Amino acid sequence: VRATVLEATLDELVERGYGEMTVQGIADRAGVNKTSLYRRWRGKGGLLAEALRAMSMPATEPPDTGSLRRDLLVLWQTAPRSRTPRDVTRAVAVSQALAAASVDPIVAEAHALLWRRRLELISVVVDRAVQRGEVPAGADPELLMDLLFGPFHTRVIARGRPANVEFLIQVMEAALHAIGASPEPGGSAHRAPRRTRRT
Amino acid sequence: VRATVLEATLDELVERGYGEMTVQGIADRAGVNKTSLYRRWRGKGGLLAEALRAMSMPATEPPDTGSLRRDLLVLWQTAPRSRTPRDVTRAVAVSQALAAASVDPIVAEAHALLWRRRLELISVVVDRAVQRGEVPAGADPELLMDLLFGPFHTRVIARGRPANVEFLIQVMEAALHAIGASPEPGGSAHRAPRRTRRT
Repeated sequence: VRATVLEATLDELVERGYGEMTVQGIADRAGVNKTSLYRRWRGKGGLLAEALRAMSMPATEPPDTGSLRRDLLVLWQTAPRSRTPRDVTRAVAVSQALAAASVDPIVAEAHALLWRRRLELISVVVDRAVQRGEVPAGADPELLMDLLFGPFHTRVIARGRPANVEFLIQVMEAALHAIGASPEPGGSAHRAPRRTRRT
Repeated sequence: VRATVLEATLDELVERGYGEMTVQGIADRAGVNKTSLYRRWRGKGGLLAEALRAMSMPATEPPDTGSLRRDLLVLWQTAPRSRTPRDVTRAVAVSQALAAASVDPIVAEAHALLWRRRLELISVVVDRAVQRGEVPAGADPELLMDLLFGPFHTRVIARGRPANVEFLIQVMEAALHAIGASPEPGGSAHRAPRRTRRT
């Protein structure tokens, strides 16, 4: 039910904009009772904040695969995909509508929280990589994060172009290089691994 | 006069939003006659489109310093700076207001044009670097562009953090590595050159 409600919240946002969207509209789309939405999330601001939380990286434990590259790929699999023109259109619409919705402090705070949560998760996997000797001590998780997320924003949201797995790997290798990680063992840095079906 | 008018256009946009902003308001801020603004730019959409054009890289010839790094730094110096908290606040406000203004097709088209113009300029300097042997043939200017601009968006606009010269150099070196450029001769990749006063 929660996933259906949050999807309906984004649909309502994209189609009507933050000013015009209503909890009633979300309830109609999701096929649930308006009262239960108010009780759980208080209003459209609370619903959008929850949708943003769901879009951030997983609320569970950070991955611990024994490799920084694999950890980052696991985190990445929770991001919305943007491989097809339809994915891109949706991502652009959601992003623009969310930016406009940030006039509401509840939504703005959820946005800030999303980035803090991402930084926490990335800091944990980088710390472990430092302990394993994969990257030098002092490797900067903020630099890694900005280099990982930024290029997707420019390609997909700002320029309206799809991002494929090859792009993901190129971005990840550039970001890892910046924090001093050595190239992938075997030198397959620019080959797409099997696990990254979702970019 | 043009620079004053375009600055006034962004001020009006940030303070009143696209829906509420007026050509009269822009004229008052800039101390010019409303009629002359209408004659030259037709309306607020045309004025914003012009402001976006002015924010893109220089409309003159692409730089040709003999070094890809120096060419990119020259292009970068035309970007708005975001070093202080006040710069960041302004950049976030302009970016959010412009995103909301993109409901107007004139503004959306100016946005798309800005990215096409940036890609043209970067393609020229990359082509020359290929001819000089600085980067391998087939180096991808789109990848370079997304890796250069994206991290600034994430750091400054999405996360509200300032970007200093050290960050610029780290981002540039990561992006250059991704397209196969060799490290800077002398190994001073992470030292800030003198010319990058504006980040």
